[in-house]
Amino acid sequence: MSQRVANFFSDLRRRQQLLLPVWFEDGQVIILDQTRLPFQEHHLALRHVNEVAVAIKAMQIRGSGAIALAGAWGLYLAALTNQSTPEQIKEAGDLLKKTRPTAVNLQKTIDEITRELEPFQGEALTRTVEDRVLAIVQRQLDFEIRLGHFGAQVIGDGDTILTHCHSGALAGAGYGGRALSVLRAAVEQGKRVKVIASETRPYLQGARITAWELGQLGIPVTLITDNMSGFVLQRGMADLILVGSDRVAANGDLANKVGTYLLALAARDNVVPFYTATSSHTIDLSTPSGKEIAVEMRDPREVLLFNGAPIAPESTGAIYPSFDITPAELISGIITERGVLRPPYREKLAWLGLERETR
Amino acid sequence: MSQRVANFFSDLRRRQQLLLPVWFEDGQVIILDQTRLPFQEHHLALRHVNEVAVAIKAMQIRGSGAIALAGAWGLYLAALTNQSTPEQIKEAGDLLKKTRPTAVNLQKTIDEITRELEPFQGEALTRTVEDRVLAIVQRQLDFEIRLGHFGAQVIGDGDTILTHCHSGALAGAGYGGRALSVLRAAVEQGKRVKVIASETRPYLQGARITAWELGQLGIPVTLITDNMSGFVLQRGMADLILVGSDRVAANGDLANKVGTYLLALAARDNVVPFYTATSSHTIDLSTPSGKEIAVEMRDPREVLLFNGAPIAPESTGAIYPSFDITPAELISGIITERGVLRPPYREKLAWLGLERETR
Repeated sequence: MSQRVANFFSDLRRRQQLLLPVWFEDGQVIILDQTRLPFQEHHLALRHVNEVAVAIKAMQIRGSGAIALAGAWGLYLAALTNQSTPEQIKEAGDLLKKTRPTAVNLQKTIDEITRELEPFQGEALTRTVEDRVLAIVQRQLDFEIRLGHFGAQVIGDGDTILTHCHSGALAGAGYGGRALSVLRAAVEQGKRVKVIASETRPYLQGARITAWELGQLGIPVTLITDNMSGFVLQRGMADLILVGSDRVAANGDLANKVGTYLLALAARDNVVPFYTATSSHTIDLSTPSGKEIAVEMRDPREVLLFNGAPIAPESTGAIYPSFDITPAELISGIITERGVLRPPYREKLAWLGLERETR
Repeated sequence: MSQRVANFFSDLRRRQQLLLPVWFEDGQVIILDQTRLPFQEHHLALRHVNEVAVAIKAMQIRGSGAIALAGAWGLYLAALTNQSTPEQIKEAGDLLKKTRPTAVNLQKTIDEITRELEPFQGEALTRTVEDRVLAIVQRQLDFEIRLGHFGAQVIGDGDTILTHCHSGALAGAGYGGRALSVLRAAVEQGKRVKVIASETRPYLQGARITAWELGQLGIPVTLITDNMSGFVLQRGMADLILVGSDRVAANGDLANKVGTYLLALAARDNVVPFYTATSSHTIDLSTPSGKEIAVEMRDPREVLLFNGAPIAPESTGAIYPSFDITPAELISGIITERGVLRPPYREKLAWLGLERETR
C-alpha cells in the first residue's frame, strides 16, 4: 500500500525540485531537522507517531503548513500499525494536537483525517487515512503553486525583493510555502530576482532558513540585520517588500512576525510596494481589526540569549512579542491562492472568507 | 605633578558617581575594556602611548568622546616621559590619530593638545600638556552635565524611554555621554524613569553597554530585539524616544546608528515624541541635508557572524551600513548643550553652529 505513497513522492520530485520539510519513505516519516539548518542537512527517520510528536514539540519541524503535514504523516504511521483501530488513530491525533496547542492548521488537519473513521477497519482503515493524507499534501502543494502563480504578477524582471522572517517551502508543503512560492513562480516564469533577507532576531529564521532555501533555489540573497531595512529602502536598494502572514483581520490589518510593521512604515515612506502572501484560511472575519488580535508573548529569555549565550547583564529584563500588527492602509496588496486583493480590502476579504467556507 | 591629576579624579568621584571610560592613576592610563562588557569589568593599565593606540584600535575603548579622551591621556603619557620634546609629543599625536582616521573628535583633541608646544620644554612642557588635557576632560564633563540639564526638561516623572544603540557615559567623559546624560539628569531631578533598550545588531551595543550602564545607575531596563520597537510603540509602552547622533545636517536631518530612522517612523505613526541628544559640534552646516551624508559601509562579515560563528549559509551575501538618515520632520526636538531646539531647525542650527565657531 505504501508503494502508492512512494510513487506519489517520486512523481512529485520528478516534476519539480521540491524542498520537502517532511515525507514518507520505507515505512518511515522523514523530517529535515530545521534546528540544524543551515549548516547541517540532517534528516530524522521516525517509525512511530510518538517520535513525530517529539519532533514537532522540539521545533525540528516548524511553520504552520509543515507541522500540519508532519501531523498527517504521524497519523499515517499510526494507521499502518497492524490491527490499529479508529479509536487508536483518534488517540494518536490527540497526542499530536497537544504538541502545539495554538497551531490551528495542525488541529484542523488532524480533525480532517480522524473524523468519521468508525465505519472502517483493517486495510480499509489504513487506505482511508492514506487517501486523506495524500489529498491534504496534494492540496497544500496545489495551494502553493496557485498562490505563486497569482503572486508572481507583482514581481518584475530584475526586481530585488526585501523579505522578513521565513515564509517558505520548509514551513509549507515543499514548493515555496507562501512568500517564497511567489518568488519561485516568478523565477519559473523567467524573471530574474534577488532577495534581501532580514536576519529576524531572536530566532534568526531569515539568516538560517530563508537564506538556506534561497541558496537551494539558486536565488542570490543578501543578509541584513533587522535594523537595516530603513537604510535599504532609503537607498532604493529594494523594489518590493514581500512577507508572509500569521493572520489577516476582516479590515485587512495583518499580524505577522514582529518587525513587519516597521518594514511597512519604511515602505510607505519610500514609496515601495508592500505585499503579504497568505492563504484564504488565515483570513479571520471574526476579528474586526488588528486591535483585537492578541499578540502571543513568548519566553523573554530568548531575547537575552544569542545562540544560547547571554548578551546582556543579569539585571536586564526583556519582552518577546512574537508578532506585530501592520495596518491595512500600509499594504499594497494581499496575495492569496484566489488572486491578488487590492485595497480597500474589507469587502474582498469578506467574499473570500465566505467563499472559503462554502467550497 | 600627577598628584594634581590624582586630585582631579578623586574630586570628580567624590562629587558624583561617574562611569569613567578612561582615567589616569599612578602613572598609568586606565581603560575599562568595553569589549569584555557586560560580563567582566576588566581594566587595562597602560604605561605607554603605543599601548593606548592599540586599545583604541581594538575598540577596547569606543565612542567619539571616550576615544578623544583616551587620546588626550595617551599624549599625557608621552609628555611624562623624561626629556620628551614637543616633536616627540607631536609624533605620539600622529600615531594616535591613525588609530581611527575618521574620528573627528579624536583628531581635533590631538590637535588642540599638540598645537604650539614649541616654546615649552622639560617640566613646563609636561605642565602645558597636563593643563590642556585636564581642561578638555573638564569641558567634556561640563558639556554632558549641561546637556543633561537641558534635556531633562523633556522627560516626565514615570516616563518609559525607548533608546537605541549606546549614547552614554562610556562613549563620553563619564557622566552620561549624550542620551544617557539626559536620563541621568532627570533621575537627579527626582524623576522616576524606565528604559526600553534595543539590542542594536550586529555589535549589540544596546544589550551589552547601554544595559550595563543603566544597571550601574539603578535605572530599570528592558531589552528588545531591534525589530520589536514598532510593537512597543503600538502598545503605548514607551512615552518618548531618545537617541544620540553621529551628525546633524544644516536642515536638521540626523545621521545615527542604523535603525534610528525606523524608530522615528514608528514614533510618528504612534504620536510618540522623538528626540536626539547631540553636541553643537556634531552640527555640520556644510552638509545641506541628510542626502549629502555619506554612510560608512562596514565589514559585512560582522552581519554574517555572531561571536565569531556564522549564522547564515556560506553562499549568503551581506551589507553593513553603519547608520541611516532620520529626516528632520520626524524629530520632535534636538537636545544640545545650549538648549533644546524645536522645529523648524534650519535657522536655529545655523545660529548654534556660528555661535560655536566664535566661542
